[in-house]
Amino acid sequence: MDFEPSPRLRDLLATIDELVSAELVPLEPDFLSRPFTELLPVLEEKRAMVRELGLWAPGHPEELGGLGLDLIDLGLLSEAVGRTPIGHYVFGMHAPDAGNVEVLHRHGTEEQKERWLRPLVEGTIRSCFSMVEPNMPGSNPVMLETTAIHDGDDYVINGRKWFTTAADGATFAIVMAVTDPDADPHRRASMILVPTATPGFELVRNIPVMGHTGSDFFSHGEIVYEDCRVPRPHLLGAEGDGFVIAQERLGPGRIHHCMRWLGICGRAHDLMCERALSRAIAPGRTLADQQIVQSWIAESHAEIEAARLLTLQTAWKIASSGWRQCRQDISAIKFLVAGTLQRVIDRALQVHGALGMTDDTLLAFYFREERAARIYDGPDEVHKISLARRILKEKSRG
Amino acid sequence: MDFEPSPRLRDLLATIDELVSAELVPLEPDFLSRPFTELLPVLEEKRAMVRELGLWAPGHPEELGGLGLDLIDLGLLSEAVGRTPIGHYVFGMHAPDAGNVEVLHRHGTEEQKERWLRPLVEGTIRSCFSMVEPNMPGSNPVMLETTAIHDGDDYVINGRKWFTTAADGATFAIVMAVTDPDADPHRRASMILVPTATPGFELVRNIPVMGHTGSDFFSHGEIVYEDCRVPRPHLLGAEGDGFVIAQERLGPGRIHHCMRWLGICGRAHDLMCERALSRAIAPGRTLADQQIVQSWIAESHAEIEAARLLTLQTAWKIASSGWRQCRQDISAIKFLVAGTLQRVIDRALQVHGALGMTDDTLLAFYFREERAARIYDGPDEVHKISLARRILKEKSRG
Amino acid sequence: MDFEPSPRLRDLLATIDELVSAELVPLEPDFLSRPFTELLPVLEEKRAMVRELGLWAPGHPEELGGLGLDLIDLGLLSEAVGRTPIGHYVFGMHAPDAGNVEVLHRHGTEEQKERWLRPLVEGTIRSCFSMVEPNMPGSNPVMLETTAIHDGDDYVINGRKWFTTAADGATFAIVMAVTDPDADPHRRASMILVPTATPGFELVRNIPVMGHTGSDFFSHGEIVYEDCRVPRPHLLGAEGDGFVIAQERLGPGRIHHCMRWLGICGRAHDLMCERALSRAIAPGRTLADQQIVQSWIAESHAEIEAARLLTLQTAWKIASSGWRQCRQDISAIKFLVAGTLQRVIDRALQVHGALGMTDDTLLAFYFREERAARIYDGPDEVHKISLARRILKEKSRG
Amino acid sequence: MDFEPSPRLRDLLATIDELVSAELVPLEPDFLSRPFTELLPVLEEKRAMVRELGLWAPGHPEELGGLGLDLIDLGLLSEAVGRTPIGHYVFGMHAPDAGNVEVLHRHGTEEQKERWLRPLVEGTIRSCFSMVEPNMPGSNPVMLETTAIHDGDDYVINGRKWFTTAADGATFAIVMAVTDPDADPHRRASMILVPTATPGFELVRNIPVMGHTGSDFFSHGEIVYEDCRVPRPHLLGAEGDGFVIAQERLGPGRIHHCMRWLGICGRAHDLMCERALSRAIAPGRTLADQQIVQSWIAESHAEIEAARLLTLQTAWKIASSGWRQCRQDISAIKFLVAGTLQRVIDRALQVHGALGMTDDTLLAFYFREERAARIYDGPDEVHKISLARRILKEKSRG
Repeated sequence: MDFEPSPRLRDLLATIDELVSAELVPLEPDFLSRPFTELLPVLEEKRAMVRELGLWAPGHPEELGGLGLDLIDLGLLSEAVGRTPIGHYVFGMHAPDAGNVEVLHRHGTEEQKERWLRPLVEGTIRSCFSMVEPNMPGSNPVMLETTAIHDGDDYVINGRKWFTTAADGATFAIVMAVTDPDADPHRRASMILVPTATPGFELVRNIPVMGHTGSDFFSHGEIVYEDCRVPRPHLLGAEGDGFVIAQERLGPGRIHHCMRWLGICGRAHDLMCERALSRAIAPGRTLADQQIVQSWIAESHAEIEAARLLTLQTAWKIASSGWRQCRQDISAIKFLVAGTLQRVIDRALQVHGALGMTDDTLLAFYFREERAARIYDGPDEVHKISLARRILKEKSRG
Repeated sequence: MDFEPSPRLRDLLATIDELVSAELVPLEPDFLSRPFTELLPVLEEKRAMVRELGLWAPGHPEELGGLGLDLIDLGLLSEAVGRTPIGHYVFGMHAPDAGNVEVLHRHGTEEQKERWLRPLVEGTIRSCFSMVEPNMPGSNPVMLETTAIHDGDDYVINGRKWFTTAADGATFAIVMAVTDPDADPHRRASMILVPTATPGFELVRNIPVMGHTGSDFFSHGEIVYEDCRVPRPHLLGAEGDGFVIAQERLGPGRIHHCMRWLGICGRAHDLMCERALSRAIAPGRTLADQQIVQSWIAESHAEIEAARLLTLQTAWKIASSGWRQCRQDISAIKFLVAGTLQRVIDRALQVHGALGMTDDTLLAFYFREERAARIYDGPDEVHKISLARRILKEKSRG
Repeated sequence: MDFEPSPRLRDLLATIDELVSAELVPLEPDFLSRPFTELLPVLEEKRAMVRELGLWAPGHPEELGGLGLDLIDLGLLSEAVGRTPIGHYVFGMHAPDAGNVEVLHRHGTEEQKERWLRPLVEGTIRSCFSMVEPNMPGSNPVMLETTAIHDGDDYVINGRKWFTTAADGATFAIVMAVTDPDADPHRRASMILVPTATPGFELVRNIPVMGHTGSDFFSHGEIVYEDCRVPRPHLLGAEGDGFVIAQERLGPGRIHHCMRWLGICGRAHDLMCERALSRAIAPGRTLADQQIVQSWIAESHAEIEAARLLTLQTAWKIASSGWRQCRQDISAIKFLVAGTLQRVIDRALQVHGALGMTDDTLLAFYFREERAARIYDGPDEVHKISLARRILKEKSRG
Repeated sequence: MDFEPSPRLRDLLATIDELVSAELVPLEPDFLSRPFTELLPVLEEKRAMVRELGLWAPGHPEELGGLGLDLIDLGLLSEAVGRTPIGHYVFGMHAPDAGNVEVLHRHGTEEQKERWLRPLVEGTIRSCFSMVEPNMPGSNPVMLETTAIHDGDDYVINGRKWFTTAADGATFAIVMAVTDPDADPHRRASMILVPTATPGFELVRNIPVMGHTGSDFFSHGEIVYEDCRVPRPHLLGAEGDGFVIAQERLGPGRIHHCMRWLGICGRAHDLMCERALSRAIAPGRTLADQQIVQSWIAESHAEIEAARLLTLQTAWKIASSGWRQCRQDISAIKFLVAGTLQRVIDRALQVHGALGMTDDTLLAFYFREERAARIYDGPDEVHKISLARRILKEKSRG
């Protein structure tokens, strides 16, 4: 066993850390107080800077200009840029585009790649991924009401989707819809490319989440598909592949989520320590002298480190034996890291007292936004049950 | 021992429950999506309705038109109106006005009462309470930088306050400022009435809290006092009384906070149950059949009931022997109820899944806003330490 | 509402506290280090003392010499004698005899009362209650393998029971056995009196529990009934009444368990405070100055008080409306108090450091023995689920 | 980074797993029910078997016949033999002998090595380590009352030690005593070899721990040194080296504790799964179908894996940069693994219901014995504070 990251990566991480601190952290107050659309110009400048340094979209496949990193290294990058809420966007590592790039790269036809993948890779357009439905448990991608019916050379799509992240301003959506309701449950749905300009695609609203509707990239859309008609070559992969593609996309994607969360954990821990060291509570005494604060700092440190190693080991396992063999591990990190994230943010906020409630630090933002970590991509409870079942199955086999 | 509430109260609570459900709950979607100022007209209508029913400001002293309830009964009312975030405002039980009424009633001169108390009681003006300072630990009201210096017949006030709830739109503030820096620490500060129109009183900003600056009553102000000059008869009580008045105000006030939080707990618990019963997760099965959800419902129920009884017992003790004898009990309920509140809201939100993150239910609002419960009026940790010290002191005396 | 205990009770509690401290606490080191049988003579002396003071078996029905206390007052007594692990035995309030007295008093024939109840009330014999079976979930008294079959004028009993507390040395057992396997599940079983001297009644072993087999009263027996024959008049109540009698016995019995646990909580809290005050960790500093210890003391205090009030309220509700209406409340206190108990003992032990692991204090005993609190009389999880179901049923009815 | 254990180790672990299952697990019922002394003969047989396989004392330095494993591999072995409470003893990896071997190997004179080290390595004698004192906080090895005073060519030792593990039956003790009370605190104490047969060395008692006094190897002694006289060449290292040697011994020793605890975690997790799979709760349903049980299995799995990786990473860091650079990491695993251990055992016990309270499984033993994990070698709280201080110091330096 060897816990040393590669020297190449160490240099990369140092560069990124510097960039994040010098260029992105100063933008955070604006990020917290202004609509995302107002930040677009300055973020475009930062993206240009990142491109010049050859750091744009490091996670893309090498043939698309990515850095050809393995999943561990990619995770470490995700953690590093995840120390600021605008990091992934600026470095071209943001969901859902990163996942869509992968899907298109793997399953797209040449024509689809030319039309959609190229500009997506370059970051000149954005996309969204339209899977979850308000009336169906998001944890079960087999249960879907949205349908795509053959009509001549077209699919006609009807249904309602929500929590379609970044739909606002996206050029196209990848929609998951039932193409064959009578098939085996896991073969019912397909993935279809839908340009958002298509008649019948209606972004009903940006869903108000934790008090904010958001805008542009930073939003979660609710979309109604009403007789939304797209040509059949907009199908991704084969008919019935929807569930498989979704799994392929979500499984390893959880590594990225987890590493991003660990980046937030690190940032929150730093903020907690800085506040502890600087806040006087009596002449000559700061919060850093308080045992309760100390125990939070220590517990958070240990929990973050442990959760981090489990995530990295999972990345290593996926790289060695494929994500299908690692569903158990993926479930474990999903809830372990999400839980750690919430505890660490909560403690950091508490150490800030009233200041922690304000938008004068990042913590109030993290507290409310990242509450979702325990919910999306399958609530923690679903992952716990699924992990336990796999363990018990193995044990019962002896 | 007798756990039965009085029959008079039972009727009262039934009336209020009905009013809350029929008149206030329907306003919540607007409350969650629109600026508070836009709700003022409809809230004024509801207040009129409440006044007609003789239910306005039931907590005011009887001679000011209140219902003459004891602290237990008042707590139960606070719980009942606390089931909706606009309840206290509509029933005239809202902080900080309710506390300011009490302070003025007890310590105000006839002139002060005529000018400030009367309209405050009637609800035609609003007030604020300006105590906490950004650079000083709010948990320690002895540490203050704001000063009020004699200059002729005036006080000249300088300093910075924040988290002055509802300063925006208030007619006057009660300011806590140091009038004698050389006095014994607990005699240094005084309370002074400052009309917000006074030159030198500047509401610098409504502090952005959890992503919202808020407005009018629903806001937390940051105020700079710069050579803010008020006549000496604006003093409340005697010089040096500041700390005592603050204690008197905050101590029993925590009962009201706790009972309001318990109202929220009850509401969140109801929402959790309703969601569990209505959300299908598979044909014929809802979340209500899931053991993990069941255990959250049960644990929340038991924790709420237990915390509630401790709060009611504390109210009873304060009524029997005065709040000074009950500091220990007040500290205990402060952190016990605040902790219960956070756990219950968190579980209720989790049961709602993605919906819980949206503003389509109250829970996201409660999750972010009521995070403050563990912080204001002394962070939980401060109360724990202070409670432990009192316990240990008693034990060491034998 | 009124939280004041009656004056009569206050005097009683003072007397008991004194007796416990002066007479029973000094016996604890022997209790912890010697077999229970060796303590019997001195415990008999203490019982005599208690009898002289008119305090023997205060919980018995008044017509059997009890004090005629209501359930709240009885609970408060149970808490008071529960501050020492030998309290209930010395005061004649010990399970399972207390419960068996009640069952016999209610359901026994005159002959049964004369033969079994009288000496049991006087404390000259002991009894046991033989219900739980090793292969059946104890949480479900409907699932039983033990049978009692008519054979002439006798019942012939076959089966295996365990965790039959205090079987060792008991004069008779009340056995729960299936008399009609074809009846409605809740009418299958009956209660039958079996003298332990009956052939076919074999106490196979005192079960080693947490490293100790125990002896006499302080033991849990495993019993094999092999063609164990008793005359039919040994039936208690009617055939098929077994389940109802068991419910009647266990339901309110949980109040006694909870109040006894609260007595232990109080004792553990005292020990924690005493240790904190006396253990030097540096010149001039004791553990009482450590914030983490302080926060444990405070949290334990608040949790104990809250759980205590919920238990007392449940006692009050049972007294007002019968235990059948209060199953929900009984479930709530079962797991709330058991959980509190374990946390408080754990913290108290931790404050004692290595000493806490030794039998030089009571805590190691409590830590291991009272772990059972979360298991017996239905594991916490079973009570949570059952409570949730009742709540959800009520809500779904509106 | 590479998470793969070496092939050599994989084979080794497989052999050990088999041996543990086939030879040691069957001895556990005897271990739980009989005095340790009665097991000595059979344990000696198993040791012979282990020696024949060349697996005896794999952790000893290579020149003493150990396997020359690095700290990670050694940790993995410790985990494997730690799956049974008699594993370490049978494989010659048991504290305190393993640590004493290391101390003698490093600091012993040739004469000391010949006389004490050789038979200790061979396992023909046993030793103990006499450091902790009842009146001094064990977490602070600088505070000691025991003294060793020069008198001619001897040291004369006076003092009281406790929790001297395995003193009963040991041939010698390594005693930590103050040799120069006026020196710098960290140079006050020295380590001295004391044959237990020396007059003035009195094993006062085997301390009753969790209800058991234990015997022989399986015991914790309280020792009084009363004018106990040993020749000066019994000094280990130089005078004043006591603290340094203790640190050297305890620091890396925590890896072994943690890995042993992880072995217990693994065993407890297995027991929990087996019980879940086998315990019927209704026709066709076992505990394995219960969500609450499932969530415990999943949470335990994730927590164990994460804590395990943090421990292995710490071993790797110690190997790369020395334990002094890793105090922070050692503190983190100390409390993280101890906490995980307690939670996992507690859940496993709960899944066993009443059976979990009995000595019919290992869990009751683990529950009470391993409670000490959060206490010895510095209570968790001490490690948290010390970890936080190091973190804060680093951060404050920038």
